[in-house]
Amino acid sequence: MKTIRVSLGPRSYPITIGKGAIRSLPGGLKKFFPSDRYVILTNRTIARLYRPRIRRILKTTKPLGWIVIPDGERHKNPKTVAGIYERLVQLKADRKTGLVALGGGVVGDIGGFVAATWLRGIPYIQVPTTLLAQVDSSVGGKTGVDLSSGKNLVGAFHQPVWVLIDTNFLRTVPRREFLCGLSEVVKYGIIRDESFFRFLEKNIGKILNLDHNALIHIIGRSLKIKADIVSRDERESGLRSLLNFGHTLGHAIETLSGYRRIHHGEAVSRGMVYSAVVSYERGLCPMGVVDRIYNLLRKIGLPVRWPDYSKKAYARVMAADKKAVGEKIRYIGIRGIGRSVVLPLTVEEITRYL
Amino acid sequence: MKTIRVSLGPRSYPITIGKGAIRSLPGGLKKFFPSDRYVILTNRTIARLYRPRIRRILKTTKPLGWIVIPDGERHKNPKTVAGIYERLVQLKADRKTGLVALGGGVVGDIGGFVAATWLRGIPYIQVPTTLLAQVDSSVGGKTGVDLSSGKNLVGAFHQPVWVLIDTNFLRTVPRREFLCGLSEVVKYGIIRDESFFRFLEKNIGKILNLDHNALIHIIGRSLKIKADIVSRDERESGLRSLLNFGHTLGHAIETLSGYRRIHHGEAVSRGMVYSAVVSYERGLCPMGVVDRIYNLLRKIGLPVRWPDYSKKAYARVMAADKKAVGEKIRYIGIRGIGRSVVLPLTVEEITRYL
Repeated sequence: MKTIRVSLGPRSYPITIGKGAIRSLPGGLKKFFPSDRYVILTNRTIARLYRPRIRRILKTTKPLGWIVIPDGERHKNPKTVAGIYERLVQLKADRKTGLVALGGGVVGDIGGFVAATWLRGIPYIQVPTTLLAQVDSSVGGKTGVDLSSGKNLVGAFHQPVWVLIDTNFLRTVPRREFLCGLSEVVKYGIIRDESFFRFLEKNIGKILNLDHNALIHIIGRSLKIKADIVSRDERESGLRSLLNFGHTLGHAIETLSGYRRIHHGEAVSRGMVYSAVVSYERGLCPMGVVDRIYNLLRKIGLPVRWPDYSKKAYARVMAADKKAVGEKIRYIGIRGIGRSVVLPLTVEEITRYL
Repeated sequence: MKTIRVSLGPRSYPITIGKGAIRSLPGGLKKFFPSDRYVILTNRTIARLYRPRIRRILKTTKPLGWIVIPDGERHKNPKTVAGIYERLVQLKADRKTGLVALGGGVVGDIGGFVAATWLRGIPYIQVPTTLLAQVDSSVGGKTGVDLSSGKNLVGAFHQPVWVLIDTNFLRTVPRREFLCGLSEVVKYGIIRDESFFRFLEKNIGKILNLDHNALIHIIGRSLKIKADIVSRDERESGLRSLLNFGHTLGHAIETLSGYRRIHHGEAVSRGMVYSAVVSYERGLCPMGVVDRIYNLLRKIGLPVRWPDYSKKAYARVMAADKKAVGEKIRYIGIRGIGRSVVLPLTVEEITRYL
């Protein structure tokens, strides 16, 4: 088992990573929650696959109850949250009751938001079950839900007291979702750590075969990079924007495709290749850097070409949240693998190379 | 104009108090908000009474829009919040958009909660228009809404960037509500400051006649006491419980009366007299202390007798949120005017003197 510490002063917390790490949940409940009262929030798939096993593990430290929500991003909304509040009333959850968010990014985001707002904040433990949630959304304290008019419009910053990552959960993650998680893993290498990127190049076979040691290594390395960035910039003012590498075009692709056919990690994969191209075209890095990124993502099986909507369509979507024409976007480019930089560019400059 | 500083490290903020202080709103918007974009949240009564005048004051620094919600505690719920989110979408409120909460406690609580959760937190300015909101709910950062199953079940701690208090608003506050505000003012004197209590005894005539200098003094003094307590105990672990003086019985009275006939300040007034009685009966303070409290509240015109529900009914309500029979409540008593103490008492001990 590996432990990583996220340093945020009084809001610091540890992350535990291991194969079979879920067995340490009872100990963690005692250590990190202020009382023996807690609830488990999860989704239907995880409840079906893992509830019996987890019930056995929690035999002597039973929760007040399980709150099971439907699967899928479209349920990450205020209505689901209202339903959870109702259950918390029924279960008599008080200020000293903890919440365990057991599931992927949706459960983590909703669980964190409920924990942030129930009785003005209760402690919560993240137990992320998908690779994407393990390397990304379980760390950083961003919680939130979508409104019909946009994603993550409502939310709060609320740090968990503990993050518990068990690589065994990855055995039941659908392949396509697993690859999407790898897209973010590759991102961490590109923006901050060339030797990690090299590790990925060399060990991609093992990783794709779910070798647990390799998984523990890449999750740990990814989280260290993210934790390091979040520790220095909790509320997202500067440094944290490096995490948006590949996301400007990625978000545009998601919006243009209506969020349906193309998954987030796939859109980001395409966006990362494009960011490398922009960096090359603007003289920041040699072509070899573009090639390495392109090749690794292809080997993983992630898409590397941007869908051919018109430049105009891309530009329109990227400019949607800008106040004035010509206003610059904090686009993230690279000077080399491991060396990301903020490039203030106009929408026109960003879309030029499409 | 008077200024008080609430010290909470990076979340510190000033409070400005004065007659006609609303004229300094444009300057404050520039100073305390990160951009010139902001919205005003208010209720129907305040909009009707003050919108024309405030529009004139804001002629050159117009808001993106006014969001007007219905009056009354029963609208302090997730449905009203959802409506406000929708308006924020329409008004294109982004992360750098500020919110001005202009109104009484309900507007302040909802406005603070919306500011805490819109895009994971935007800055907000409190402009409380009732005495109760001015001396109590505008300071402390507690925000929240009610669910049908209970009050303030959903919320967040989110500090305003500025609190602007104009005593002119008090001219249109209904008399009964004004007296309820005074109930909390008296509380501050009782729990922390005998000389302030003496000031109230001597100047109650002026205060009841809305003498602005007297009002500015009592608001300032009350806020200093509250700010001092909140500064030392932002998240309500210890000291802050002194603010609950009179509230244990007060809440029970509100619950038993169904929140309708008896207003919060009136219930607290009765609760404070009872707390003095409990303190006297338990040998903490002489009878003279009870008399002074009783007399001042009567002079103000606040009720001082507890409604005669059975002891059993009171006990049942007070014990409702306790886990185990016999568990102690952190009841607040006094050793004298200005000297409050936490008394861990059982429900039986608390209700003995009813």
